[in-house]
Amino acid sequence: MIQTLTIVGVGLIGGSIGLAAKKREVAQRVLGVGHRKASLDQAVARGAVDEPFLDLSEAVHQADLAIFCTPVDLIAEQILAAAPGCKAGALLTDAGSTKATIVRRVTERRPNHVAFVGSHPLAGSEKRGVEFAHADLLEGRVTVVTKTSETAPADLNRTIAFWRSLGSEVIVMDPEEHDRALAMTSHLPHLVASALVGALTPSLFPLTGTGFRDTTRVAAGDPALWTGIFLQNRESLLGAMDRMGIQLDYFRRALLASDRTALDQLFGYAKRLRDSLEH
Amino acid sequence: MIQTLTIVGVGLIGGSIGLAAKKREVAQRVLGVGHRKASLDQAVARGAVDEPFLDLSEAVHQADLAIFCTPVDLIAEQILAAAPGCKAGALLTDAGSTKATIVRRVTERRPNHVAFVGSHPLAGSEKRGVEFAHADLLEGRVTVVTKTSETAPADLNRTIAFWRSLGSEVIVMDPEEHDRALAMTSHLPHLVASALVGALTPSLFPLTGTGFRDTTRVAAGDPALWTGIFLQNRESLLGAMDRMGIQLDYFRRALLASDRTALDQLFGYAKRLRDSLEH
Repeated sequence: MIQTLTIVGVGLIGGSIGLAAKKREVAQRVLGVGHRKASLDQAVARGAVDEPFLDLSEAVHQADLAIFCTPVDLIAEQILAAAPGCKAGALLTDAGSTKATIVRRVTERRPNHVAFVGSHPLAGSEKRGVEFAHADLLEGRVTVVTKTSETAPADLNRTIAFWRSLGSEVIVMDPEEHDRALAMTSHLPHLVASALVGALTPSLFPLTGTGFRDTTRVAAGDPALWTGIFLQNRESLLGAMDRMGIQLDYFRRALLASDRTALDQLFGYAKRLRDSLEH
Repeated sequence: MIQTLTIVGVGLIGGSIGLAAKKREVAQRVLGVGHRKASLDQAVARGAVDEPFLDLSEAVHQADLAIFCTPVDLIAEQILAAAPGCKAGALLTDAGSTKATIVRRVTERRPNHVAFVGSHPLAGSEKRGVEFAHADLLEGRVTVVTKTSETAPADLNRTIAFWRSLGSEVIVMDPEEHDRALAMTSHLPHLVASALVGALTPSLFPLTGTGFRDTTRVAAGDPALWTGIFLQNRESLLGAMDRMGIQLDYFRRALLASDRTALDQLFGYAKRLRDSLEH
């Protein structure tokens, strides 16, 4: 059991971690850090957090384990700002959607008395805020935990154990490998959904059905969060766009040639893959 | 009230029309046509159809109103094959996802004693079969009813009244205008979802979350149905791909330049549009 767990950023993910930690008795005390008192109060009222803090360092310095659930372009700076005053042996991790930049920045500069291991729970949504948090958000979902040549096995194992104790499955990956994978599985779908919506004249909205809504749902995500993710993962994303472009080109050529067999094969391949995702 | 309603193709859409027609007492008798006895029996068991028919003409010739819910590349031929033996004044319509080709082919060759008006209820799903049909599928959904210079106002009004009696809202459009619009709102999203899945290495499946699943759900649709739709609407689809390509290019250029402002604007625009879809 963790004595003091500090959650920096008590929104959908941070709030769900707090709720799960309380429900599963993973931590004795849960401290929550935010910059708006109203949402901190809400986190306390929902039982996601025992004690609210507006001061990041004050809360992180008490932690045995601290998790940073803030936008990806803030995480490394916040960790490095709080690290010097942390308890010896404190474990710091995060919930950011990109890993390579964060892990590199923190690893280069962290003080030796604290441990850092990067994490990414694949359990987001286009919703934001602790009001959408729930104790089961991580259950059965995958969390990626990063491992580099600098990662001490004991720190890696503590991080893995933390996520498992919250109900998550864990996959260990290299940070760059994570970013290349997530460019395909998460960032590119976000880009494509946004491009699909952006290409649509609003006068056609009444002619959208559930298909359009499903396909573009993620485009309702917070723009600033996604800009941060895209800037940190731009190279992998450009590669992902190229891979998507090849597929789009197959369709274009099949359409130009009115090639029934080619279209059948493209749709058939996509259907088989998509069906296999449900199992 | 319609005396005899004949539904050709009793799957998700046809079955739902039958269930709604029975529930709302829109028709006295509902005849269902299919080519597999098992699914016809299921349609009868579910109460979507009163009498099953394996012979299309036999059932359509008894109809006051017949609706063709078969793949788009079959509809025009089936209508034209059955039309000569239809009752005088019978109204024929369809539920196809494309309209221009179907309406043109039927209008050119239909006998004068039957009326034809094209329809497209925007209420599909990636699911198929009468087992997924339900009486409320059309409720609050939009059905496009097509109008051309050949469409008699009385026939148009009967078609509109039919869909409204099933709980659907109706939008009247020119068939070509429908196809251009649906290329953007339905066919392009299907293409993009299929391309996204097709670009993904199956080894990355464990790293997909709800976002990927939402964005690609429609790719599980029946390949043959979608090939038929794409071939009938290829020109509009190629135009839709170009419009999407412009948006993708905005993202690519913003990424290449690491342009935070441009990314914020692109995501912000998409979010505002997507949010407005929910209202």
